Formats: sequence, structure tokens, C-alpha cells
Amino acid sequence: LELRTHRRLPLETIRALLQRMEADPTYRFLVVEQLLHEDAFAPDFHPLSRTEAAAQAGLTEAQVRELEALGLVLPCPKTGRFDEEAVHLLRVLAGLLEMGFTPEDLHFYARWAQEVARHERALFADLCQDGSDEAEKVARYQRFRELAGPLLRLLHLNYLRRTLYDLLGASGQGTEG
Amino acid sequence: LELRTHRRLPLETIRALLQRMEADPTYRFLVVEQLLHEDAFAPDFHPLSRTEAAAQAGLTEAQVRELEALGLVLPCPKTGRFDEEAVHLLRVLAGLLEMGFTPEDLHFYARWAQEVARHERALFADLCQDGSDEAEKVARYQRFRELAGPLLRLLHLNYLRRTLYDLLGASGQGTEG
Repeated sequence: LELRTHRRLPLETIRALLQRMEADPTYRFLVVEQLLHEDAFAPDFHPLSRTEAAAQAGLTEAQVRELEALGLVLPCPKTGRFDEEAVHLLRVLAGLLEMGFTPEDLHFYARWAQEVARHERALFADLCQDGSDEAEKVARYQRFRELAGPLLRLLHLNYLRRTLYDLLGASGQGTEG
Repeated sequence: LELRTHRRLPLETIRALLQRMEADPTYRFLVVEQLLHEDAFAPDFHPLSRTEAAAQAGLTEAQVRELEALGLVLPCPKTGRFDEEAVHLLRVLAGLLEMGFTPEDLHFYARWAQEVARHERALFADLCQDGSDEAEKVARYQRFRELAGPLLRLLHLNYLRRTLYDLLGASGQGTEG
């Protein structure tokens, strides 16, 4: 059994982006986010079994099962295998467990991500009710995802920084104006 | 009044990253996320007034005030000015308004980001109770933020993809194994 131990990053894509960024300084930050959040995952990644995914993330199979049960990682519902994104998620979770958090501590992330997604589904359904065709819906979804991701991330970062400020003192404030 | 109309992206930093990525294929995706989410904001960015920030994002001042009231953008609590991150957030919000969403539609993002941050604060306070010094706390916070950001983002993306699947048909499924 050959484990894939290296993550391949799309250097050519990043190079092309760099060129365009140099040519056009207004080229949007959004594009960078999009590039790294979507295309940084190798298209030819072969989904892993639970055993393989656990090994790649430095977790035990029992830990992975527990994270799955809490909705903190979502293997493919049909095959039960872990795509590259799921493996990355396991690595992030492994880092948090290593810091001293328990899977139960982290459960709320899954609940909230699910709630946000439900709310977004309702919003998005309204937006799609004008009888637009499939291609148009997919294009809107792509655009929505491009925007909703950074929105949630930036808001989270801002609120987190403010909420933790008193725990950390002025040194944690960083660049906050 | 001179508006800053171009966003400066740290090309040198990205070039250095590229070199390291080529030299070391295991170089972590986390580092890329970190780089782009933190350092992509220019350190010499001069915080903008509401008028300037609105103009940069293509919004009216009234719209910016409404977004502030809903907690969807957080200017500096001391100066009321908008740092680069806040301006970027306004651009993302402008994109969503342009798609047809209302500020009220988006209000839940602020509520949830705030709830997540509160929960994280409680977790983090527990983790810091062992009398570790300030520098150690800040280092843990940095590490926590490095991990919590991608965790929330990936979970959100996963749940969003699954939740919207039936609205979009197979073409929206993309790379989901």
C-alpha cells in the first residue's frame, strides 16, 4: 500500500497568478483566496481509506471515527473514503488535539458550520426561484461560495481577536488599527 | 483627498514562499493559508474613514452604517476607522449585496461568528489557566488561530456543498470524491 506523503501544490497556477498580479495591481484578493482554497487541492488525489487518512494526519483510527461521529470530518457519503480536503481537515484537527483540545471541545464547530449552511441554503433557494437554468445556478453558487467563505473567515477572525483581547493583553492586538 | 485605489499584494513574500514550496514539497498548506490571510494585508495601510472605505468598496455611506449596525463590519473601536481587513470585508459584502442578498439576510454571519468566538474564548481561557506567561499565551493564540480558521472554513465548505447539492444537481458536486 503506497501512501501519498507529499501534497502537490499547483505551482504553475500560482506563477500565472503572480504574473497577472504584477500586470494588474487591482487584481482581487478574492482570486487569491479562491485559487488557494480550491485549486490547491490536487485534482488527481486518490481518496484514502480511514486507515490511510488517519496515518497521514497522525491520528488513530479510533480518533478519526470519533471525529466523524461528531461531524467534524465528512468522508464521502457513498464510498466512506477521505478526499484531500478531508485529509487536510484531519491534519488541522490533529493540530488542535495536540494543543490540548478534546474532540468534544471542537464539536460546536460542526454544529455551527451545519447551521450556517442550512441558513445559506434557504437564502440561496430564494435567489434561485426566478427559474434560472442549471448553469446559471451553478455560476451563482460558485460566486456565492467565493464570497461567503471570506466573509465568514474575516468575521470570525475579527470577533475572535476582539473576544480574546483581554486574555492576551496589548501584544495580541496586532494590526487592529 | 487621495484614495488608495490599488491593493498592494506582497509579491516578494509569495515569491519566497514559491521557492520554499519547490524545495520542500511537504511544506504545509497551513503556511499558505497563514501567509495569505495575514500577510496579504499591507502593513503600511493607512486606516480609512467611513467615506473613504465606502468609496473603495463601491458602497454608500448609509450602506456601510447599516452593515456596521448589524455587526457585519467592525471598524476600529477607538478611532472608528477601517483597516485593510475591514475594507476587504466591505468589498466581500458589496459582492453579496450585488448578488441580491440584503444586509438582513447576512446578519446571521455576524451572530454566528460572535458565538463561535465566545465559545473559543471559553476554551482558550481553560487552556491558559496553567499560569503560562504572556508570550506563551500569545504563541498559543497564534497557533490556535492558524488552526481554527481553516477548521471553520473547511467545515463550512463541506456542509455548504452537501446542503446545496440538491439545489444544484450533479454539476455542483465538483470534486467531492
